[in-house]
Amino acid sequence: AQSMRETARAPRVRELMNTKAVSITEDEKIKTAARKLLKGETNHLPVLDRNGMLVGIVTTFDVSKAVVHDGKNNLVRDIMTKNVIKTHPEEPVDIAAQKLERNNISALPVVDKENRVVGILSAIDLGKLFGGRWQR
Amino acid sequence: AQSMRETARAPRVRELMNTKAVSITEDEKIKTAARKLLKGETNHLPVLDRNGMLVGIVTTFDVSKAVVHDGKNNLVRDIMTKNVIKTHPEEPVDIAAQKLERNNISALPVVDKENRVVGILSAIDLGKLFGGRWQR
Ligand SMILES: C[S@@+](CC[C@H](N)C(=O)[O-])C[C@H]1O[C@@H](n2cnc3c(N)ncnc32)[C@H](O)[C@@H]1O
Repeated sequence: AQSMRETARAPRVRELMNTKAVSITEDEKIKTAARKLLKGETNHLPVLDRNGMLVGIVTTFDVSKAVVHDGKNNLVRDIMTKNVIKTHPEEPVDIAAQKLERNNISALPVVDKENRVVGILSAIDLGKLFGGRWQR
Repeated sequence: AQSMRETARAPRVRELMNTKAVSITEDEKIKTAARKLLKGETNHLPVLDRNGMLVGIVTTFDVSKAVVHDGKNNLVRDIMTKNVIKTHPEEPVDIAAQKLERNNISALPVVDKENRVVGILSAIDLGKLFGGRWQR
C-alpha cells in the first residue's frame, strides 16, 4: 500500500475505482432501480440516456424519498439528481475525496472524455489507502 | 514485534465522527425511518431499544428493499440489520476504515462502553484525512 504521508504522487482514481458499475436508463421504473440497487448491493446507480451518456444519478436515498412522497413519482427520471458530481480516471484521489466530503455524497461516477461511465468511486474505496499506515 | 521507528499516531474515530447522529426506535414505522433519513440527509439510522441501547441499523438500502418487497413489512424492526458493525471513539481510524471496506458498508455507529450511540462515522468523513497530503 502507498503511504499517505509520502509527498509522492497521489494515487489516481483509476487505481481505486470499481469498473463493474451497474447503471440504469432514465425512462425505467423506480422499482426497477430499487431492484438493481439491491442486486448490485450498491447505493448508487448512474443514469444513462439512450446514447449511453451520463445524465443523472439515483441512489437508495432517492428511492427512500419516493417512499415518503409515495405514488407521486414513477420513473427514474422523476427522482434522479441531474447535476451529477463526477470524476475521471486520472484525477488524484485526494481531489475526489474532497468532492465527496464537500458535497456530503458517498460516490462519484467515473467518466471518460465522452461522458461515458467507466466506473464508480465510492467513499468506501478510500479505505484501501489506509492499510498498515500508522504504528500501533 | 515493536518497531523503534517514530511514526505518527493514527487519528482516532473521535476526531472525525459526527456527534449529531439521528436515531430511531425499533417499533417505529418504515415510513418514519424514510422521513428521518431524508431530513438528516443521511443514509444511516442507528436503531435503539426502549432503554436507548443500540440494537440495529436501518439504511436507505433497507428502505429500498422494502420497496421491492412492498407491503410485506411495516416496522423498522422488520427491516433493520441486527448484527451491527460498530466502532468506539478511541478506535484508530484506519481500523474503522478497514471495517467499512471489508464489510462494504459506508458508516459505523460509534458507541460508548454501555452500547449507547455517541456518534456516527461515515466513509465520507475519511475524506477529511486527505487535505494537502500529496504534491501537485
Ligand atoms: C445529499 S446525499 C445524502 C446522503 C448521504 N450523504 C450519502 O451517503 O450519499 C443524497 C443525495 O445525493 C445525490 N447524489 C449522490 N451522489 C451524487 C453525485 N455523485 N452527484 C450528484 N448528486 C449525488 C443523490 O441522488 C441523493 O439525492
